[in-house]
Amino acid sequence: MRTIDLNADLGESFGPWRMGEDEALLAVVTSANVACGFHAGDPLTLLQTVRRAAAAGVSVGAHPGYADLRGFGRREVEAPPEEIFADVLYQIGAAAAACRAAGVELRHVKPHGALYHRCVRDAAAAGAVARAAAAFGTGLQVYAPPGSALARAAVEAGLPVRREGFPDRGYLSDGRLAPRQAPGAVVADPDEAARRALRMVLEGRVPAVDGGWVELEVDTLCIHGDHPGAAARAAAVRRALEAAAVEVRA
Amino acid sequence: MRTIDLNADLGESFGPWRMGEDEALLAVVTSANVACGFHAGDPLTLLQTVRRAAAAGVSVGAHPGYADLRGFGRREVEAPPEEIFADVLYQIGAAAAACRAAGVELRHVKPHGALYHRCVRDAAAAGAVARAAAAFGTGLQVYAPPGSALARAAVEAGLPVRREGFPDRGYLSDGRLAPRQAPGAVVADPDEAARRALRMVLEGRVPAVDGGWVELEVDTLCIHGDHPGAAARAAAVRRALEAAAVEVRA
Amino acid sequence: MRTIDLNADLGESFGPWRMGEDEALLAVVTSANVACGFHAGDPLTLLQTVRRAAAAGVSVGAHPGYADLRGFGRREVEAPPEEIFADVLYQIGAAAAACRAAGVELRHVKPHGALYHRCVRDAAAAGAVARAAAAFGTGLQVYAPPGSALARAAVEAGLPVRREGFPDRGYLSDGRLAPRQAPGAVVADPDEAARRALRMVLEGRVPAVDGGWVELEVDTLCIHGDHPGAAARAAAVRRALEAAAVEVRA
Amino acid sequence: MRTIDLNADLGESFGPWRMGEDEALLAVVTSANVACGFHAGDPLTLLQTVRRAAAAGVSVGAHPGYADLRGFGRREVEAPPEEIFADVLYQIGAAAAACRAAGVELRHVKPHGALYHRCVRDAAAAGAVARAAAAFGTGLQVYAPPGSALARAAVEAGLPVRREGFPDRGYLSDGRLAPRQAPGAVVADPDEAARRALRMVLEGRVPAVDGGWVELEVDTLCIHGDHPGAAARAAAVRRALEAAAVEVRA
Repeated sequence: MRTIDLNADLGESFGPWRMGEDEALLAVVTSANVACGFHAGDPLTLLQTVRRAAAAGVSVGAHPGYADLRGFGRREVEAPPEEIFADVLYQIGAAAAACRAAGVELRHVKPHGALYHRCVRDAAAAGAVARAAAAFGTGLQVYAPPGSALARAAVEAGLPVRREGFPDRGYLSDGRLAPRQAPGAVVADPDEAARRALRMVLEGRVPAVDGGWVELEVDTLCIHGDHPGAAARAAAVRRALEAAAVEVRA
Repeated sequence: MRTIDLNADLGESFGPWRMGEDEALLAVVTSANVACGFHAGDPLTLLQTVRRAAAAGVSVGAHPGYADLRGFGRREVEAPPEEIFADVLYQIGAAAAACRAAGVELRHVKPHGALYHRCVRDAAAAGAVARAAAAFGTGLQVYAPPGSALARAAVEAGLPVRREGFPDRGYLSDGRLAPRQAPGAVVADPDEAARRALRMVLEGRVPAVDGGWVELEVDTLCIHGDHPGAAARAAAVRRALEAAAVEVRA
Repeated sequence: MRTIDLNADLGESFGPWRMGEDEALLAVVTSANVACGFHAGDPLTLLQTVRRAAAAGVSVGAHPGYADLRGFGRREVEAPPEEIFADVLYQIGAAAAACRAAGVELRHVKPHGALYHRCVRDAAAAGAVARAAAAFGTGLQVYAPPGSALARAAVEAGLPVRREGFPDRGYLSDGRLAPRQAPGAVVADPDEAARRALRMVLEGRVPAVDGGWVELEVDTLCIHGDHPGAAARAAAVRRALEAAAVEVRA
Repeated sequence: MRTIDLNADLGESFGPWRMGEDEALLAVVTSANVACGFHAGDPLTLLQTVRRAAAAGVSVGAHPGYADLRGFGRREVEAPPEEIFADVLYQIGAAAAACRAAGVELRHVKPHGALYHRCVRDAAAAGAVARAAAAFGTGLQVYAPPGSALARAAVEAGLPVRREGFPDRGYLSDGRLAPRQAPGAVVADPDEAARRALRMVLEGRVPAVDGGWVELEVDTLCIHGDHPGAAARAAAVRRALEAAAVEVRA
């Protein structure tokens, strides 16, 4: 029987500001990427999110990003690899401490936003992320785009890789995500997201926004928590997978 | 044979700004309280400091503070206990991850600045700090002023307490530190600091700046790293202790 | 004919996080207190908010607060008066530059949150705020609670005072606002807020949450922008005032 | 008689951390680029620095940078032009308010670090900086590398340009500064810096680190305040210029 993990970025509120549909998403996803206070979140939000994930039986991962709250970690910052290593290690440690307090284990690491995108091609940055995860502990899974520098770096660091697809985002035919402003870059319709999820899981491919198909073998599917309607899209994806006899679990 | 720990606050540089005499202090002290990025330090400084401490054979502790770089954690911020719990847990986790990468264990926790002073009398804040340390792991030592709310809270949380004295600071007769601006509040002279250290360790008391004596049973002595001449004072204290046949070790 | 100003705190979004009902409030109020990036807002949000206020014909003021985004400027920070002076001056300057770019003038200053409350009784802090406003320019109005240290400091600094009342907040009989957690501290019902506004403007008094009445002569009424339903409350207050032949203008 | 302005970056301390030789530089330079709290400085440091410059008769300019204290504004942040416009306007406003309190006028604007370098070639970023300066006030001078996108944008915005040279930095033959890590990139020797200053002012050229000469017409010379020995280099440059009958003034 085919199995797949369903993950979402959670804990992206900050201080008095709310973001995301965390409660609704925790009822649907199997893994949570929890913001660690650099691009979103703060220590109390992190702890509360981990506790809620633990209560919901959702597996917890760290979601480290650039230290850029105002830009939400979505814009490139020319941080050198040694700083990326230190920053990712720091954020993993903070998330792991929240897990200890909540009585669960930290299971995975997934870089956020611009750092994630940089790790597709930048071997030095990807290596810094993977080595930081390995320095923390050998069991951490690394979520990475299939074929990316990050996937390779994780293997080199001796860590298990979970190849990730985005059913709510459009792809270019070269395998990259379409820029957020491009037509078709963001898939809002739950049914369309569900169809794309099925393609990825059952066929290992998905149509590209610029024509043709992208080959894409995935172990985990991400639903973006900061788009409106995220919970509805995640639920539609999960229902479609289960209707196709795919087991959804971390 | 009497033994005493000698500790200093280290890793207090931030980004491009340098502070402290870390290298010189690491040659003298037996325990390092490493800033965790909230009142001072940053992830790379934290990691480098922990690595240096590990290389020097100096025991490593977390030095969590209020999230107030500009105020260096020295001014009171009305943070509620649940936020203090989350912030201290977060900082402990970040410091512990740096320790893992450096191949050593995190041994103790000591709150910084205004948070430390608040924990002398504020049972709710002290409880938050102690419970955060206990939530992280049962073995963490808590550095606390003798007789403080923090010392009591650590015992209640099941954690070992290390009672702390400050040979480079003046005390009031009620046991509190004299405010930094008061005459006699800061002891700059290495010989005077050494004499005060001997008093604390051998006699369990020290003269108060407002007359009389303060009774003070201590397990560890702190040399403030941000005062000029810290390393010279620490060395003088250590020499005096060893000359009096006191073993200096973590 | 009696006139009154109606003000609201605007521009309290930060980076990717939204807060408040700015557009709806700008259609109702006559003065905007615009966050300056210390407790809320950021330079782009500040500029866009000032432009929208200018387009709506709403008078613009600076709303300086403590540098504490995570705490939203609502918790006391022990900043010394010389730092308050510098911080308020800085924030006034930043807001005034946004006004220049939008082709309007900065008209008033109103401290935010914990700084506002500190300025009720703390003459040193109130003096720092008032002198910062006066150092910027002699024409700036200071919004202050009637009878407060801030009102006195503004007079001493040669600045016009606008005495402020809060129809959406409960008062204690000693004239202070009831703490936010206390029963009756937050008035959510638009009709009740409107009734309280009429009391303040026409009778110069309002019932206290702990019994009796509070005497309160006011020149301006504040509707809190961060409470849900703020725009509806502001509209109800305005309608009630205009129905009672009170002119609402800056 | 030939005249030249001598400028330095000042006010780069932050909270408890000191940087630079401000007092010594204020005795030598004729213009100060004062950090505005984004890459360095804080509101109190800004105000004190402006007051000191005013007392020393040194002309004051704003030195806006990326909001990146940890990176000291030295690394590229992918901020969009509308955000650069808002951020530069904000920092100019804050600096101008400090000038008002100090009884002087803000005279110029010079972007810092990575933002300065981006403005050499990136017309959108350069336009954002120049239009922000023009939105603040038509009289502000813009310090810019000769031939840069920033120099062109300032002219288009109707602002006076001051072409800038760096006697303490090596140039590539294409006119750009040599990267800080490259050999010859940083000129530490005061006499060498003085010789290079004379070349720039009297000959309009300077030897390139990669061979040949760089043509360079300049109106102002910058001495980097964060390099050790800055004041000695500035003094050597000034003496050499005056010995060559060049008038040094803002």
